[in-house]
Amino acid sequence: SLDVAASDFEALTEEFTKFEEQNKLYVEQQEKIYASQNKQLKDLAHHNYRLRQISDSLRKQKPTSTEDKAKIEKLQEEITTRKSQLTDIANTLPRRNNLYLRTVLGDLNLSLMSKAQRFQYKDEYEHFKLVVTMISAVLSFCNLFLFKYRFMDAAFHFLLVWYYCTLTIREGILRANGSKIQAWWVAHHYITTFLTGVLVTWPETPIYQAFRNQFYYFSFYLGLVQVLQYRYQHGQLYKLKALGERSTGMDITIEGFHSWMFRGLGFLLPFLFGGYFFQLYNAYTLWNLSKDPRCREWQVAVCAVAFFVLFLGNVITTLGIVLKKVHQ
Amino acid sequence: SLDVAASDFEALTEEFTKFEEQNKLYVEQQEKIYASQNKQLKDLAHHNYRLRQISDSLRKQKPTSTEDKAKIEKLQEEITTRKSQLTDIANTLPRRNNLYLRTVLGDLNLSLMSKAQRFQYKDEYEHFKLVVTMISAVLSFCNLFLFKYRFMDAAFHFLLVWYYCTLTIREGILRANGSKIQAWWVAHHYITTFLTGVLVTWPETPIYQAFRNQFYYFSFYLGLVQVLQYRYQHGQLYKLKALGERSTGMDITIEGFHSWMFRGLGFLLPFLFGGYFFQLYNAYTLWNLSKDPRCREWQVAVCAVAFFVLFLGNVITTLGIVLKKVHQ
Ligand SMILES: CC(C)(COP(=O)(O)OP(=O)(O)OC[C@H]1O[C@@H](n2cnc3c(N)ncnc32)[C@H](O)[C@@H]1OP(=O)(O)O)[C@@H](O)C(=O)NCCC(=O)NCCS
Ligand SMILES: CC(C)(COP(=O)(O)OP(=O)(O)OC[C@H]1O[C@@H](n2cnc3c(N)ncnc32)[C@H](O)[C@@H]1OP(=O)(O)O)[C@@H](O)C(=O)NCCC(=O)NCCS
Repeated sequence: SLDVAASDFEALTEEFTKFEEQNKLYVEQQEKIYASQNKQLKDLAHHNYRLRQISDSLRKQKPTSTEDKAKIEKLQEEITTRKSQLTDIANTLPRRNNLYLRTVLGDLNLSLMSKAQRFQYKDEYEHFKLVVTMISAVLSFCNLFLFKYRFMDAAFHFLLVWYYCTLTIREGILRANGSKIQAWWVAHHYITTFLTGVLVTWPETPIYQAFRNQFYYFSFYLGLVQVLQYRYQHGQLYKLKALGERSTGMDITIEGFHSWMFRGLGFLLPFLFGGYFFQLYNAYTLWNLSKDPRCREWQVAVCAVAFFVLFLGNVITTLGIVLKKVHQ
Repeated sequence: SLDVAASDFEALTEEFTKFEEQNKLYVEQQEKIYASQNKQLKDLAHHNYRLRQISDSLRKQKPTSTEDKAKIEKLQEEITTRKSQLTDIANTLPRRNNLYLRTVLGDLNLSLMSKAQRFQYKDEYEHFKLVVTMISAVLSFCNLFLFKYRFMDAAFHFLLVWYYCTLTIREGILRANGSKIQAWWVAHHYITTFLTGVLVTWPETPIYQAFRNQFYYFSFYLGLVQVLQYRYQHGQLYKLKALGERSTGMDITIEGFHSWMFRGLGFLLPFLFGGYFFQLYNAYTLWNLSKDPRCREWQVAVCAVAFFVLFLGNVITTLGIVLKKVHQ
């Protein structure tokens, strides 16, 4: 009845007063935290600056005695340790986004403040890649064997444009949060966005038809490779996490991790290089097609060049990563 | 010399120890804040739930006396006040992003926690729209009178796809932070992304050529309209801010604001409706072209329908907004 409602509301109001107070306190704390963040960002810049000065002056020293030499080495070691401590601190503070993220998303705080959040975000990123990759593999299969509509082709190309565009955004966020993704992989996704964008504009000419099936075989193969890549990178992510919290009882050692990694990499690499040579083959086919007398569209040569650039960058970067890992 | 460097480093280490402690404290506070956020989110849900129950039971009451009627009205008023207080609190807490944002960006905390941040973000959004709009107006002008390359056309269409796609992301963020942008404007930008995407795939046929110039005139006109729209919405943003902090001495009243708004809107509306009828005209032209015997491409009819939908939604929504404002 009415009285029940009134007394219910009164009881709720009492609770609300407490809730409101708690929220006020929280907002105040929030503001203090902002102030503290700003101060720490300044301190961080100061420490980085001073460290750079000191290591510059160390580099100019010409040690005259072995004692001095040892001193310098010790200092340099300490500076390296300090730098990694400062990186750890930096990871707890918000960062200014790069130009691309600022342009697309505006000036937001995109920092993931804790290790758990960063892990989760990366995990989700890998999962996202897997899901879209599988969708695109299924679509390439269908477009190859079931449909032959330019409309479905366009939808597929648009999916790819959207996907790679999204990857560049997410990778920007990952890099802003301390991921060591090499610049090439990000560049790779920008170039692929461009390449798939060009494919979208390619009208349905005989030349388009001549390349169509090869492109779908390539996409399908890429889908399979990326599933393998997911297995490797996802495994690595979890192993690294377990390494980081070795106290939790999972018996994993650095050596165990390394042997696992090399086995995984050894399995993956042939497939990756298969993909890279497929890219080279695409570049070759397109280049020949662009010399075809029937070919009037600019897309053919542009795609040939883009595929070749992808091939080159992928081979160089992957070889570089493998060499670095073997050296360590 | 070496000793200077060593003693510099020592001094810096002392500072660093303090800095590290401060950071540790900050990380702890951060974690407390997260815990508090979670508790408050639960409280918020509880209060919203209880309020809904109480107002449901009030709605079922049949008042028998004028006294009861007054009581019910008073309670209902209090509930409305409470609801807006709860919204204020909700604005200080993080929110789960909608599906679209989660898909594109992953599960990030995109909440802008303070009024100042929200204001700044909105301000930047308006500015971003202005800049890209002016670029696109200049490009349409160039493509209309200077270049006639399909390549430049494609670049222009891609700029539009990217721009509208970006708008949908930013508007998602704005809405997640309490902006009252009507759903139609967001839908409008999804449809436009689709429409410009279709334009990208349109090969250079006679039909394309027949529509090309009209599209550039339209884009150019749209650019001009959007500059006017920027002036209005930017002005409104600042006036509303001033209204909110009336203590600061800017002498603005609600009445003054309303008269300013109606003058601005009165100036803007003819241009907006000009744009809407231009959209209708585009739909009409495209529809006729799609009946042309030379027309073999699906893009023509699809674009016609999209323009018509845009026209319809814009007219209905804008009329609705104007009616609502006049009523208030
Ligand atoms: C060669 C390869 C397997 C090595 O992977 P890896 O052992 O993780 O390499 P690194 O140690 O250099 O990784 C450093 C960081 O970059 C990330 N990374 C490496 N390659 C990446 C890629 N292709 N895309 C996105 N992120 C990548 C890693 O996850 C790691 O992130 P973290 O710092 O957040 O932990 C990996 O780079 C790869 O799969 N490359 C092939 C991609 C490709 O060619 N795709 C197209 C197929 S034709
Ligand atoms: C009609 C119009 C001028 C009314 O603007 P208004 O007075 O700000 O309208 P409202 O009071 O409904 O605004 C509510 C909110 O939505 C926002 N908003 C309104 N129209 C918007 C639009 N077209 N795009 C983005 N945001 C919009 C406002 O900024 C406000 O945001 P806030 O809650 O963060 O303060 C505006 O909607 C408009 O310019 N529409 C035309 C857009 C258009 O048709 N473009 C294509 C031209 S052909």
